[in-house]
Amino acid sequence: MGCLAFLKDFFLGFWDYETPKVMVVKDKKLGVIYRAVQLLILTYFVWHVFIRQKAYQETETRPESSVHTEMRGVAMLGDSVQDTTEYVRPSEGFDVISTILRREVTHDQTQGMCAEHYSVADANCTKDSDCTQGDVDFDGHGQRTGRCIPYYNYTFKTCEVRTWCPIEEYAAVSEPAMEKAINFTVFIENAILFPKFKVLRSNIKPKKRKKLERCHYHPDTNPYCPVFRLGFIAEQAQEKFSELCRTGGIIGVFINWKCDFDKDSSKCIPTYSFRRIDMRKNLPSSEYYYRFAKYYHKDGVEYRTLIKAYGIRLDVIVQGYAGRFSLIPTIINTVTAMTSIGICSIICDWIMLTCIDRNEVFSEMKFDDVSKNPDEPITTDFTLTSYGSTHSDLSDGVPL
Amino acid sequence: MGCLAFLKDFFLGFWDYETPKVMVVKDKKLGVIYRAVQLLILTYFVWHVFIRQKAYQETETRPESSVHTEMRGVAMLGDSVQDTTEYVRPSEGFDVISTILRREVTHDQTQGMCAEHYSVADANCTKDSDCTQGDVDFDGHGQRTGRCIPYYNYTFKTCEVRTWCPIEEYAAVSEPAMEKAINFTVFIENAILFPKFKVLRSNIKPKKRKKLERCHYHPDTNPYCPVFRLGFIAEQAQEKFSELCRTGGIIGVFINWKCDFDKDSSKCIPTYSFRRIDMRKNLPSSEYYYRFAKYYHKDGVEYRTLIKAYGIRLDVIVQGYAGRFSLIPTIINTVTAMTSIGICSIICDWIMLTCIDRNEVFSEMKFDDVSKNPDEPITTDFTLTSYGSTHSDLSDGVPL
Amino acid sequence: MGCLAFLKDFFLGFWDYETPKVMVVKDKKLGVIYRAVQLLILTYFVWHVFIRQKAYQETETRPESSVHTEMRGVAMLGDSVQDTTEYVRPSEGFDVISTILRREVTHDQTQGMCAEHYSVADANCTKDSDCTQGDVDFDGHGQRTGRCIPYYNYTFKTCEVRTWCPIEEYAAVSEPAMEKAINFTVFIENAILFPKFKVLRSNIKPKKRKKLERCHYHPDTNPYCPVFRLGFIAEQAQEKFSELCRTGGIIGVFINWKCDFDKDSSKCIPTYSFRRIDMRKNLPSSEYYYRFAKYYHKDGVEYRTLIKAYGIRLDVIVQGYAGRFSLIPTIINTVTAMTSIGICSIICDWIMLTCIDRNEVFSEMKFDDVSKNPDEPITTDFTLTSYGSTHSDLSDGVPL
Repeated sequence: MGCLAFLKDFFLGFWDYETPKVMVVKDKKLGVIYRAVQLLILTYFVWHVFIRQKAYQETETRPESSVHTEMRGVAMLGDSVQDTTEYVRPSEGFDVISTILRREVTHDQTQGMCAEHYSVADANCTKDSDCTQGDVDFDGHGQRTGRCIPYYNYTFKTCEVRTWCPIEEYAAVSEPAMEKAINFTVFIENAILFPKFKVLRSNIKPKKRKKLERCHYHPDTNPYCPVFRLGFIAEQAQEKFSELCRTGGIIGVFINWKCDFDKDSSKCIPTYSFRRIDMRKNLPSSEYYYRFAKYYHKDGVEYRTLIKAYGIRLDVIVQGYAGRFSLIPTIINTVTAMTSIGICSIICDWIMLTCIDRNEVFSEMKFDDVSKNPDEPITTDFTLTSYGSTHSDLSDGVPL
Repeated sequence: MGCLAFLKDFFLGFWDYETPKVMVVKDKKLGVIYRAVQLLILTYFVWHVFIRQKAYQETETRPESSVHTEMRGVAMLGDSVQDTTEYVRPSEGFDVISTILRREVTHDQTQGMCAEHYSVADANCTKDSDCTQGDVDFDGHGQRTGRCIPYYNYTFKTCEVRTWCPIEEYAAVSEPAMEKAINFTVFIENAILFPKFKVLRSNIKPKKRKKLERCHYHPDTNPYCPVFRLGFIAEQAQEKFSELCRTGGIIGVFINWKCDFDKDSSKCIPTYSFRRIDMRKNLPSSEYYYRFAKYYHKDGVEYRTLIKAYGIRLDVIVQGYAGRFSLIPTIINTVTAMTSIGICSIICDWIMLTCIDRNEVFSEMKFDDVSKNPDEPITTDFTLTSYGSTHSDLSDGVPL
Repeated sequence: MGCLAFLKDFFLGFWDYETPKVMVVKDKKLGVIYRAVQLLILTYFVWHVFIRQKAYQETETRPESSVHTEMRGVAMLGDSVQDTTEYVRPSEGFDVISTILRREVTHDQTQGMCAEHYSVADANCTKDSDCTQGDVDFDGHGQRTGRCIPYYNYTFKTCEVRTWCPIEEYAAVSEPAMEKAINFTVFIENAILFPKFKVLRSNIKPKKRKKLERCHYHPDTNPYCPVFRLGFIAEQAQEKFSELCRTGGIIGVFINWKCDFDKDSSKCIPTYSFRRIDMRKNLPSSEYYYRFAKYYHKDGVEYRTLIKAYGIRLDVIVQGYAGRFSLIPTIINTVTAMTSIGICSIICDWIMLTCIDRNEVFSEMKFDDVSKNPDEPITTDFTLTSYGSTHSDLSDGVPL
């Protein structure tokens, strides 16, 4: 075939329409199976993939989020009044905020020399030679001076150390817990932006900000008021507040945005859930505390008030998910659905050829055997009948 | 058929090649429609999916990011000089950093007893019996002592409370805003690692670190200098700096990495955008402030200086996206594209069978009817002609 | 055709089963190619997609994570004892924690008037008129008073400024580094929740919490002990600890959860990796430091101790990935696999029609040409033979 002829053929052939030849099997049983399987797959795609999973939407799962927290409330902790300045740390209102509920305070510590705690390894002594000068024990309080001195106003002796004196274990005053904090409130403001959809949402209704000061969150009656009582949070996290006061704990505040922007975006309001996240099961000793100090000077010497603070730490964790109709995923999923429906053919072909096709009528009709050998007569539908049985049904199991 | 014969058949049949029989319709109109639809879908995939969406790339959307912030600048705030130690909180240079722009300072507070603020519920009194001893009002400042005393140097009386005295509302001194802070700069260092691609990028050019001290960011002339004037940030966020000084606000600093590692990775530089993220529309009262205290001791008594700080909080939010050629998504998307082109057949079959096929020539050729009943004569292309019309075109609407 | 007849046809046709007619080519060479390509694609899907990529699983990549950090250790820094209260900032135990390793301390600063540093632009002067009153230099320390005074106990003069006096550059005392901090430990507790699978995991074995106090992490012998020596961290990050002491640095602590919940979920334990994340190559001057102050009052005047702290900042970055068998991705990926195997046909058709089909036996069998013109005789397999060559093989390259 010359090049020109080839091009001409190609050009003529290019505008031909090609469509597969189809065999129509007039068999009710097979037809019902075929349609049933199709229906099943169709139902799955329409109901689960399109209606439940919303596969026609493009989604956004990494929204930009900003959190601002603020606590309110005042209570007595021992003899002193605690306002937010005192019990909230850090004060800047980030997405992690902690409330002090109980304190062990060591007053008037200053750098000096005093007795090591008796529980520290090798700290108990009877004479100076028991204490190696310059040693710094990892679990101890400081550097040993090499002297063996009485343990404060007790009769036994321990090694002297250079440290903040007196040591916390001896001098700390454990204050009663601030049980009244159960009524403290935390205001959690959360603005969220879905950059793909250019939708900005907040968990506060714009016009209602003034009213927020006195409201309390309730999922049904007050979903737009992000003011939570600590007691409510503890209850939702299935923790006893009095227990939390004693040991402290970390509670996750999960803000869940699940938005469907095909509906009115004003219906996109978050849900809140609370869960203790530092908990290990069957473990009574899980605690959350941290130490900080307030410094002051007296007669030119630096003193500190060391505070071991037990409290609730709230970690605000924002999770967003939004979807909106988009042509591309719709097309892709429709194509996938259609392709999947093609599986019917494989199943039904297999049923037809193995179960129904007793007289090999169908396989003779479906398969045209053709041999490469040009000397053999060209096999057609008519001549084919004679060796239709050489065709293996099983090799058809793998689809083409 | 015996088992051996079956196996032999299977083995012989296994190496046969099966290909669908195709009907070529020599109809120009249909051919043009067919090729046009194919072209449309092909164009969509090549242009949108492959060129624009870069479907041949595997992507990474969760890079590891590290942010280090540092502020510079010094200004007078009232009578006192403010350096970064004073106005930056927290000082450690995390991805959230706040600058104090205006302060309301309450000096020399100490725990004691003084008059409650008159706006607190039931705080106004005329005699001691108006004040219940031991009450702690949620919105108040502390625990009532049960006495009714004059409100500081005023003539009216309120209940006395045990609190930090004097109360902030009475004693706070509002300082002028630090307007000069418009020239303060914030240096934002951001290193990002795409673990899948093992590429580490920074928003600073390695060799130019020394020069950073004096440069200012500009998207065109200085994209590698991540030093931003607060005034520039406010302007980009479309906020008035003087307004921010008054009320405070939270501004998101979005660092966007969109990298194509098929190109030179040194071309992967971030863009910055700024947006106020605590804003609700039409709401003049949006504020950002927090309170903290500086503690000191005088004559053995703890005093504090309470500071209500209005300022700008910068939340640095890093978003990364990178892609690089990969065989797997390329194959998968190519297969999807080819499958989608198969839709043409469904459309064109439908056109052919309903619109063009007036004399049912095509449907007779395309469809081979066969009945299961072995007593019926085997229907072939020749005998089929007579009841070709019983075939329903519509049932072909659902693809196989 | 009447409406009723049409409906009847449709109903009858609806229950017909349609299956493509297939040509079986008895050609060993082609069969081998066909099966080989099928095997190749099948192997790829079974081995890579299903076994290695676990495409039968649904995955969760955004787990909820909570981090709690705590440092332990005590050491001498110059003359003073440093316990965790002193060297850990912030103290609350968030996912970013910094340890002070070296300090430059400026004692007894107070707001007043003193000489500007000589390196500041235009700060050097000989007479008062060299200093403009009220100027605040951006890189300087405060507002100029307009006087030219001796630079502390030196002979040259600089402009006087209103600032915290004395200035840090003159008065700062550089303390030796706390090299002993190499033995400090950081305890990193990480609880992780995969919401989709409702599995909560912690990096601590519940029952072993008591033993944690003395253990050290080792990937092989002690994977459940998340207590890391600072020296171990530096070593893993390939940094010299003594160098870090001098300059400070930010090290990322990456906790990687890669869980397969088809196996026992107790086998889901994290791996840790450490990498310096503020580093730019070939850059000796990369530093991490920040300034903070301790405030105190003396004779009614506020003083501060300014501390420039060099240290290690640990950024705990949690990355989670979990998978579990799910029907939906299994089906979808199986369908994709089957569709991909269909590509074999395209390849083999092309080979068959161009390479093997010398006598156009196959193309005659595969393609049924049909013309729309009803006046032409209906073309069948028999009459087709004569102009089979007009069919273009290439137009078949695009699949249908």
